[in-house]
Amino acid sequence: MDITSNTHSQHISRQFNQELEELKTHLMAMGGLVEKQVQDAVHALLEGDTRLAEKVRDNDRQVNELQLQIDEECTRVLARRQPAASDLRLVLAVIRATSDLERIGDEASKIARNALLLSENTSAVRGLIEVRHISEHVRKMLRDSLTAFARFDTELAMQVVHEDELVDDEYGSAMRSLMTFMMEDSRAISSVLSIMWVLRALERVGDHANNLAEYVVYLVKGLDIRHSDPGTVDQKVLKKP
Amino acid sequence: MDITSNTHSQHISRQFNQELEELKTHLMAMGGLVEKQVQDAVHALLEGDTRLAEKVRDNDRQVNELQLQIDEECTRVLARRQPAASDLRLVLAVIRATSDLERIGDEASKIARNALLLSENTSAVRGLIEVRHISEHVRKMLRDSLTAFARFDTELAMQVVHEDELVDDEYGSAMRSLMTFMMEDSRAISSVLSIMWVLRALERVGDHANNLAEYVVYLVKGLDIRHSDPGTVDQKVLKKP
Repeated sequence: MDITSNTHSQHISRQFNQELEELKTHLMAMGGLVEKQVQDAVHALLEGDTRLAEKVRDNDRQVNELQLQIDEECTRVLARRQPAASDLRLVLAVIRATSDLERIGDEASKIARNALLLSENTSAVRGLIEVRHISEHVRKMLRDSLTAFARFDTELAMQVVHEDELVDDEYGSAMRSLMTFMMEDSRAISSVLSIMWVLRALERVGDHANNLAEYVVYLVKGLDIRHSDPGTVDQKVLKKP
Repeated sequence: MDITSNTHSQHISRQFNQELEELKTHLMAMGGLVEKQVQDAVHALLEGDTRLAEKVRDNDRQVNELQLQIDEECTRVLARRQPAASDLRLVLAVIRATSDLERIGDEASKIARNALLLSENTSAVRGLIEVRHISEHVRKMLRDSLTAFARFDTELAMQVVHEDELVDDEYGSAMRSLMTFMMEDSRAISSVLSIMWVLRALERVGDHANNLAEYVVYLVKGLDIRHSDPGTVDQKVLKKP
């Protein structure tokens, strides 16, 4: 290979690295927006802030547009650069991640819609403590899964996977209390149902954060740990070389 | 290029085509299993067949394994064959489709779990007519979206996209009736809630079938119609050349 073509191929590879970096940057921007959407939706609900709830509902379009843009970038990289090994895994992980982030965006919209419904309710709404508690938990999971993605940090990713089991337990116990509220006071049925949908949406946010964490393990280690038991995965993922 | 290498490259391309065909075949097998899971879950619920419900719950593992297998095949094809244009779109559509089929499998499991809960209920369960009706609708959507994928049929795919709007309306109206049942009879709250979760799961099956249909349009036409208004999409997708 002569020097010119070598420089040329270095140039290509520098550009390629830059494209991969950009993919990550854009994914992180989408992640940041989605985090904000969840935060605002829960805040709107807890504070009865209808304007904020409407803003969240309207912003969902931006989330959707980012998904389409980033997916198109991924397709372009695949077609032009034909990446292999860890580069290919990065692109595939980004494609999967945009889908989960988009769905988190949908869940934030659902929370915002329920915030609007509940704002018409004059009586005290039950279950807000549970909403606050679980929302803090899943927002931390989401933040950690995005950080793990940005830093290729499999240890942090595995923490998120384990947190998801706790959230599922908290969700189950919150739903049982809400069912009791409902049975005690049939006038509260419609508002308790709204809170149930909100909790369900938050639990789904936790599931999607868990998925994001699984993609981090996939892209760093080449291990597909979806549908595996978190306990047995730990040994494979966290073992020191 | 001499004849040997030409034969060689024909051989490669024949093998490549065969690999792409296999991807499609495996996706269709996964689709068939998932269709059966939804059908069995609903049947178990309507007929109170607990053994069938348990079978559905246990079979979910098979669905998950198929997802991992097919995704691995897709990654291998991307890494080895470096497909471009419509071949690349096919592989990406298959990766997205396995994710939706896996989630449909999850929804079928949820329906089966609620069938088991409801089987302990001795009183008459309300809302079964709504379940039957919506399940028939979304099962048809799922069947059609898989057929559209197998035949690269964008017209059928667009029908599925439109059907999803109807299902969303039916779901909304069924949920309102169920809320009324709940208010009328607080002893029925827990069974009505189970039926609400089932309806919600069925509505999600419809959403995923809609996604599958959108991937068909993407792979055949190269148009990403996610998040677009179905009415305006029709003109782009169905126009004759």
